[in-house]
Amino acid sequence: MPLPRLPAPLFKSLALVGVGLIGSSIARAAAQSGAAATIVICDHDEAALARAQALGLGQSYTSDVTVAAAQADLVIICVPVGAYGKLAAAMAPALRAGAIVSDVGSVKTAVVADVAPHLPEGVHFVPGHPVAGTEYSGPDAGFATLFRNRWHILTPPPGTDEAAVAKVRAFWEAFGAYVEVMSPEHHDLVLAITSHLPHLIAYNIVGTAAELEESLRSEVLKFSAGGFRDFTRIAASDPTMWRDVFLHNKEAVLEMLGRFNEDLTALQRMIRRGDGQGLFDLFTRTRAIRRSILQQGQETAAPDFGRRAQETDGE
Amino acid sequence: MPLPRLPAPLFKSLALVGVGLIGSSIARAAAQSGAAATIVICDHDEAALARAQALGLGQSYTSDVTVAAAQADLVIICVPVGAYGKLAAAMAPALRAGAIVSDVGSVKTAVVADVAPHLPEGVHFVPGHPVAGTEYSGPDAGFATLFRNRWHILTPPPGTDEAAVAKVRAFWEAFGAYVEVMSPEHHDLVLAITSHLPHLIAYNIVGTAAELEESLRSEVLKFSAGGFRDFTRIAASDPTMWRDVFLHNKEAVLEMLGRFNEDLTALQRMIRRGDGQGLFDLFTRTRAIRRSILQQGQETAAPDFGRRAQETDGE
Repeated sequence: MPLPRLPAPLFKSLALVGVGLIGSSIARAAAQSGAAATIVICDHDEAALARAQALGLGQSYTSDVTVAAAQADLVIICVPVGAYGKLAAAMAPALRAGAIVSDVGSVKTAVVADVAPHLPEGVHFVPGHPVAGTEYSGPDAGFATLFRNRWHILTPPPGTDEAAVAKVRAFWEAFGAYVEVMSPEHHDLVLAITSHLPHLIAYNIVGTAAELEESLRSEVLKFSAGGFRDFTRIAASDPTMWRDVFLHNKEAVLEMLGRFNEDLTALQRMIRRGDGQGLFDLFTRTRAIRRSILQQGQETAAPDFGRRAQETDGE
Repeated sequence: MPLPRLPAPLFKSLALVGVGLIGSSIARAAAQSGAAATIVICDHDEAALARAQALGLGQSYTSDVTVAAAQADLVIICVPVGAYGKLAAAMAPALRAGAIVSDVGSVKTAVVADVAPHLPEGVHFVPGHPVAGTEYSGPDAGFATLFRNRWHILTPPPGTDEAAVAKVRAFWEAFGAYVEVMSPEHHDLVLAITSHLPHLIAYNIVGTAAELEESLRSEVLKFSAGGFRDFTRIAASDPTMWRDVFLHNKEAVLEMLGRFNEDLTALQRMIRRGDGQGLFDLFTRTRAIRRSILQQGQETAAPDFGRRAQETDGE
């Protein structure tokens, strides 16, 4: 089902800086919903830019961020967060008075620190993070409904223009997203447990398997349907993006990893000592958590994530 | 697509002891493929037995394992592995000469030790493990194609009758499974990394979230689409079954957990020291592992496990 069309555009000119999974999904959603009258696509990677043009994701295409920024009343930064500081410095002189700058980075405290100092007076900074994505990357990976029924978190610094925040909120709501406002610090703590730690653990277990002696490793691939393959999905996420996440949300990630490690030590001890009741109790509590996520509509209830239907279709 | 029908049944009377996800899937697959002429369903849980009968999963139903065993030329034990010893002792006197006893337990060394001593001379023991499943339990959760394109591992003790092994192989192949034979010890080592450790880690991270202060926990549910929800699927698996797996494959699980912990410590160190290159290299290696699993047909290539199609259908 396509996104419903707005009666009038919210922005005249949207500049998307970076056209990977998220940038290209915004382009498609903005076109489908009519949230932006025109879209400028900017990417320093010429191949990605050419691909975006071939896909018809915007009305103009440039590798020069000042060209993109000069036309826009909304600029959304959609590149790995490690590149933000340099990018903000480069685009700042070109930004129009009254323009809004936002982003989609998975960490927010570091982003505010890297970007805000560069922005000129009269430009509104409304950082954001769509809690949505897939394991695929690049302009071809995006789709218009990626953000539907997903949360979009805004972390405007204190004193940000209310009207600018409201416009960004309306923009994401046009994509079917639920918008929530919180502080960058709180965002980074919550996402450390809901997103960063799961990615870290998945990368680690898949890494452990990758290090196994060759004969055992080939069997891991073969028998991965026993549970292992669930982890490989998020461990296939974009390496540059995730390197930057861990480098820019170090404290919160290490804090949550510390809790995880304490719990894992306790669990290890239960296994070593043969504490069946302790294991059973834990495994019952965790079942309840999934039920709650299903009730909140943030997960499919289809067995195996609905892989069965997929697999049957594929045959 | 239903399972193809065999020209003639492989077994006259199949007894399924335990009618949960796996037992009820075998019943459906055996009926659909015609691999067994008649099916006796046995469960000590009267509610599960009544439900199996309402679903029409077999031709007769009993809570008495000796009744089930007395009629069967193939008995498959489909209960948590902690219950095997007592069950084997109870059914042993009723087993017919020439009958085959198999199982579907996720550990094999302990199973052989618990079951083999009870079985009378002339009964063939061919332990097995289908590397397939979903997060759902009970007679309603099963489906006939659960085993299609999945591996089924057989671990017959040395000296097992070749003809009996061949018949069990043919039975699982009739369900579309690929059959592999290995030693119980090797099975337990491979499954420790492909299945037991992933479950352990998933239970642990979901447990860590369950222990968070109330306000933070509600946000974890809300923003679970950031990665966390992938872990909740396998952490929703049957608690009794998994308690028994960890208690009965202790050594191999603790060995693999040791490797995982070493790797996690190294990863933690990379984050603390800001080793971006180390992180990038690891995250690139793990991506390749998923590609291999996709190539081997053990996973769907649909983004997000195909959840997108599910979610769109559900709207």
